[in-house]
Amino acid sequence: MTSGNLLVAQGGGPTAVFNFSLLGVVEEARRLKIKGIGKIIGALRSIDGLLDEDLIDLGKENRSNLRQVALKPGAALGSCRRKMAEEDYGRIVEVFKRYDVRYFFYIGGNGSMFTVHKVDQLARSVGYELNAIGIPKTIDNDLAYTDHCPGFGSAARYFASVTREIGLDVASLPPPVSVIETLGRNTGWLAASAALAKEDEGDAPNLIYVPERVFSLSAFLSDVSDVYDKWGRAVIVVSEGLKDKSGQYLGGVNAKASRDGFGRNLPGGASSFLAAKIAEQLKLRARSEKPGLAARTGVEYVSSVDRREAYLVGQSAVRAAVKGKSGLMMTLDRAAGNRYYCKVGEAPLEKVAKAEKLLPPGFINKRGNFVTEAFLRYCRPIIGDSIRSFPDLSKHRIA
Amino acid sequence: MTSGNLLVAQGGGPTAVFNFSLLGVVEEARRLKIKGIGKIIGALRSIDGLLDEDLIDLGKENRSNLRQVALKPGAALGSCRRKMAEEDYGRIVEVFKRYDVRYFFYIGGNGSMFTVHKVDQLARSVGYELNAIGIPKTIDNDLAYTDHCPGFGSAARYFASVTREIGLDVASLPPPVSVIETLGRNTGWLAASAALAKEDEGDAPNLIYVPERVFSLSAFLSDVSDVYDKWGRAVIVVSEGLKDKSGQYLGGVNAKASRDGFGRNLPGGASSFLAAKIAEQLKLRARSEKPGLAARTGVEYVSSVDRREAYLVGQSAVRAAVKGKSGLMMTLDRAAGNRYYCKVGEAPLEKVAKAEKLLPPGFINKRGNFVTEAFLRYCRPIIGDSIRSFPDLSKHRIA
Repeated sequence: MTSGNLLVAQGGGPTAVFNFSLLGVVEEARRLKIKGIGKIIGALRSIDGLLDEDLIDLGKENRSNLRQVALKPGAALGSCRRKMAEEDYGRIVEVFKRYDVRYFFYIGGNGSMFTVHKVDQLARSVGYELNAIGIPKTIDNDLAYTDHCPGFGSAARYFASVTREIGLDVASLPPPVSVIETLGRNTGWLAASAALAKEDEGDAPNLIYVPERVFSLSAFLSDVSDVYDKWGRAVIVVSEGLKDKSGQYLGGVNAKASRDGFGRNLPGGASSFLAAKIAEQLKLRARSEKPGLAARTGVEYVSSVDRREAYLVGQSAVRAAVKGKSGLMMTLDRAAGNRYYCKVGEAPLEKVAKAEKLLPPGFINKRGNFVTEAFLRYCRPIIGDSIRSFPDLSKHRIA
Repeated sequence: MTSGNLLVAQGGGPTAVFNFSLLGVVEEARRLKIKGIGKIIGALRSIDGLLDEDLIDLGKENRSNLRQVALKPGAALGSCRRKMAEEDYGRIVEVFKRYDVRYFFYIGGNGSMFTVHKVDQLARSVGYELNAIGIPKTIDNDLAYTDHCPGFGSAARYFASVTREIGLDVASLPPPVSVIETLGRNTGWLAASAALAKEDEGDAPNLIYVPERVFSLSAFLSDVSDVYDKWGRAVIVVSEGLKDKSGQYLGGVNAKASRDGFGRNLPGGASSFLAAKIAEQLKLRARSEKPGLAARTGVEYVSSVDRREAYLVGQSAVRAAVKGKSGLMMTLDRAAGNRYYCKVGEAPLEKVAKAEKLLPPGFINKRGNFVTEAFLRYCRPIIGDSIRSFPDLSKHRIA
């Protein structure tokens, strides 16, 4: 196996278990140190810090502190939103040469996987021996070639829990409508996950809308009206990524920011837009809730399965790399059968980087206003233990 | 003491410990049963159900189930938003006569305290012997004559925790601005409580705005710009009740709903409105988070102190009533000294019902963009144990 140093970085938006993958890499590398891995280097601020050579020695971190840091929301090393320029890849390889980095692990989503792919290719083309592995991470669950992505299960658990809790509040104080907005710009995985809150008919959520379907306001209002007429209330979960026929985010904000070179149409108003429409058109009291970043930082809602799997993909990436593998992303492959079990697999970065996994049609109902039983079976084990359930009063009536 | 039945109801918006006050009433009444309290009646759907005689026998509830129900978000008995008509008070007294109700406990906020006050007065004027006691409950903390209100501490703990967690996310992925919107239509108590998230300079929250001060967009943008220039990021907490000079909610929704007789200008857009302004005027990437109802339902964030005190005011209300007291609201009176301790006191409903407790000027800084040390001292013990703290990596630099 190759002797040299290891470098790990975290890319893109944090998840609640982002740092567990980092822990998996560091702990496994420490175990394998005798086999040829030298320094365990962490790049602060992701590729930004890597290019600035803003590097730390993770091998010198106190072991128990590192375990505490793993529980922390955000990216412990820091992350970035860099738009990669073509020359950046070459500069990365230059830094690797300078620090004798032979193992590169990048924990991230689609964009990060593309970066690892390019770096891997470039290193190969210039004859620099490098083992570059992508470690999947995204609350959006939109990476292909893996059953699901570390980070998704905890955010899904968050939305399922919060939807159940809000549902109990709404049920105890009618007549109200609540529109809960989930994260998820292009995919409806997180909005769909709120369905795990439902135990009985009438329970929250009553309706779920995902960006995989073009949003129709008239169909939506008709659905809400039906639910309200039946139950006297409605809890509706919508993805922040809902778009109208023209492809615009519902209630989207056009953020023309130049100070940080950023400028694009941003989602983030679907729930308040729809609550206003419900009030206006259906004459119902409606409000909106948008937990936003709280859904990916909530340490109280971390899925035990997600935490374990986030660690596992980090750990397995190191094992794969020391076997000489490169240009791969670690995947979670679900075994067939009734009992949930995922083993770690691999997928070529070239394929992963190009793909985006949307909710398959079989996970959305015909009307496009809820998920199917197949989705529930898929999602339930990923969120860990059952979410908290609350008993009702027995309610012995007085005659 | 008066012999007769007891009736308890829950009014207005739920809190995370609403049902602990209910538990306090029921358990204490069960203990005192031998002393003259007959049936322990619960009114479903608050005054709505009381008038419909939709009543249950809480004395028949299983004790351990009742303890589980106490943990449940929402109002276990159901609540209502009834606009009381003058004749309703008389009808309440009629129902009390029919069911021989001699003890009336209403757990609620300002509106509910006014109801108890009216019922108490009316019963007196018609010579019907009744012991009517108000039990304070509101996340808004705006009831006067009490140090604080049960329900506030848990919602405060929620916003402090979530602000810290979001702050860690934002700090790890710059350059971003996050505007977090808290509950609180008229008062800034909850927005202020987020300040407990801050450990060091630069930590979230950087800025806090409350409705006790008229909101100035230009001052706000100047503050945000200063914070961004200093720290490269900004986490800003705003109350949903922020109003501009004309008295309109920032980004407010004008909900003209008639189906449920409801129609007024509603808050709920301050954070997205301000995030859009930051993007537009300061050219910074800004997003907004509005946990909304999640802040009063989050069982994981319940303050142990709040839970205990919610129970205590329920329990003490029963004790006061069997001593023949009526027309009072139970209060929490903080003892002087360094160690936090509240004993239960009483205040006349007549006074309580008319008052609304705003943040005192001494709790808001001069600039109107943060709280003072005096507020932190006031609020810290109410949220229970310290909120979760997260260590950082040691970050040994590589030369």
